[in-house]
Order: sequence, then C-alpha cells, then structure tokens
Amino acid sequence: MDERLRRQLDFILEIDKEKNIFRQTHLSGGGRRENDAEHAWHMAIMAYLLKDYANEEVDIAKVMIMCLIHDIVEIEAGDTYAYDEEGLKTQKAREDAAKEHLFGMLPDDQKAEMIALFDEFEAYDTPESKFAHAMDNLQPLMLNDSNGGGDWKAHGVSAKQVYSRQGKTALGSRKLFEVADGIIQENIRKGNLDV
Amino acid sequence: MDERLRRQLDFILEIDKEKNIFRQTHLSGGGRRENDAEHAWHMAIMAYLLKDYANEEVDIAKVMIMCLIHDIVEIEAGDTYAYDEEGLKTQKAREDAAKEHLFGMLPDDQKAEMIALFDEFEAYDTPESKFAHAMDNLQPLMLNDSNGGGDWKAHGVSAKQVYSRQGKTALGSRKLFEVADGIIQENIRKGNLDV
Repeated sequence: MDERLRRQLDFILEIDKEKNIFRQTHLSGGGRRENDAEHAWHMAIMAYLLKDYANEEVDIAKVMIMCLIHDIVEIEAGDTYAYDEEGLKTQKAREDAAKEHLFGMLPDDQKAEMIALFDEFEAYDTPESKFAHAMDNLQPLMLNDSNGGGDWKAHGVSAKQVYSRQGKTALGSRKLFEVADGIIQENIRKGNLDV
Repeated sequence: MDERLRRQLDFILEIDKEKNIFRQTHLSGGGRRENDAEHAWHMAIMAYLLKDYANEEVDIAKVMIMCLIHDIVEIEAGDTYAYDEEGLKTQKAREDAAKEHLFGMLPDDQKAEMIALFDEFEAYDTPESKFAHAMDNLQPLMLNDSNGGGDWKAHGVSAKQVYSRQGKTALGSRKLFEVADGIIQENIRKGNLDV
C-alpha cells in the first residue's frame, strides 16, 4: 500500500478514539453522557438542515467537515466543559499540541487542510465558522433543555454564563439565537437556571 | 416560533435517539459496541479524506449528508446485522415505514430531500451512493480487523460472506476495494476468517 493511503487509514483508525471522549451533556431522555463523535454527527446534520438560517451564505460542505473534526483534538487534550474556568485557561495549549500530533498523522496537504479548518473554527471569524459555532452552542442547549436543565444544575451554571456562550450564536444565525434565547428564558421561568 | 423551524427542531431532537442504536461492530481496542451515530460520523470523515479514491467524481457534500443520515431509520426499524439473513428479509419493510414516519417530522421539502437521499443510498446506483457504501463497508472492516476479527468469530461469518459485501466496495472505489481485499486476505491467513 502506498504511504499516502497508509497515513490516511492510520489517522482514520486513530480517530475512532473520539467515541470514548465524553462530554458533560447528557443525551435526551435523561440518558448517559454524550461523546464527542455523537455530538459532531448531530451538529453536522443540524447544519445541513438549518443552513437557510445562517446570517451569511455558507459553503455547507465546509461547515459539515468543520463540525465533524472540531473536537478531534480532545482525543489527546480531553474535553473542556464550556463553563470550566480553570480548564479553559489551559485549553488552547493542550489542543495545539494535540492538533499537531493527531493531524500530523495525515499526508502533509491534508494535515494542513485539517489544521486550517480547526483554526478557522476556533477563530470564529468566517461565515462557516460562525455558523458551525451556532450548532456547537445550540445542540447541547437543546439536549439540556429536553432534560430539564440537569447539566446546568449539576454544575451550578447561571443564566449569565449561558447567555455569554449562546449570545455568540447570533454571530452565525440571528434566527437560531432567538431559539436559544427562548429556551433560556423558559428555563429561567421554570427555575432551572438562576438569573 | 414558526411551524417550519419547530418541525426542524423536533426532528433534530428526535434523531438524538440514534445514539442508542447499537451495531454488532466493536470499537477499536476491543471496546464496547459502536452506535449508529458514531458509525455515521466516522464514515462522513472518511469520505471527505478519501474522496480522491472514488471511481467517479463525487459531490462530497452529498456523500457526507448521505453517510450522516443513512441509518436514521434504525431508530424505529432497529439495526440489521449485515450477515443476519433472516433480519435482511424484513429489513426493507421495516425501514420504509420508519423513513416515512421519521423524515415526515420535517417540513415537506426536507422530508422529500432526505427520503430521496436515503433511497439513492439504498439503490447503490449513483457515484455518491456507491462511494458512501464503500465507506459503510470499509469502516466496520477496519474496526473489526483492528480487533483480530472478533465480530466475525462471534457471528461465525465466513470469508465468502465478507467478500460478498466488500466486493461491492469496488463499485465505489477500486483502490479501497484493494484495501478491503488485503485486510480480508490477512485475516484468512491469521485464521480469523474461514474460507
């Protein structure tokens, strides 16, 4: 087998490990914690179905692959909960090391492409990355809402913290920010989130 | 919220259940059984990285969304193991009912689009569906190979049965069929597969 294909297949087998990286979010129906691969799958389908709500026109193939690969670094860097302030301080350094090592398994051109997609997602600047982030924000909000806000309660998360994250959803989709806002307001009314 | 968006969000929450549909394939490292959402995530990334090996040029966004949604019907129809001959007899009827019901949650235009993608995948006729099937075949082969063929041994699957499925990988990618062939031959040599 040629070297290029061997590297691609080695990478593909390596990322199987993303299925063992568990997030703080629980599945609907009060299920177990969700893993990164499931979360990414869900985001990519959401992006496809909701693409008409993006503020700016997006290249949907780019949004989907960005959603699918955005958490691969967590195989080595671990998951950092969105409201874990200590973990967030070291997140970038941990993820930078992981992206070099993991994407470095691929042929050089694909390593460069995947790192560029990952960096673009992180920079939150382009239409595609802003819309992909809207999915990354809305997807766990919907699951947590379906579970009566259990994940917020378990971590003592406040409405202010949720708005700080979800507010940025409006950068990708004002329409989907309205959805997020409605969910947050309803959970404040129900006592699932402290103001 | 308008009716269109409400239907889209209801569908998105409903398909969370795909994360609870477990396949016969085990994760690498002798892990637990894989679920449909993880499998679809893996296939979509593989498709993106390996697209240059498709026999015919493919619309990669279409291949990815096809990979991502191809097992959604199993939320209601259950998973049918590729080598379960009894289950395979009723698979189409079970999946047809599920696709009407599940994709019927979406707005009519998106219902039609998702059913068309699902049917195209099943028909194995277009460049995109043939390449998506190559991923659907190669992905569990790679995992099972990484685990010493444990899934074949557990189900008494023969090399003839594996070739019958994997042979069709050549319709989507002759290059990736060579990979599958190499894996099968190696597992025959190791005694993991009976000829």
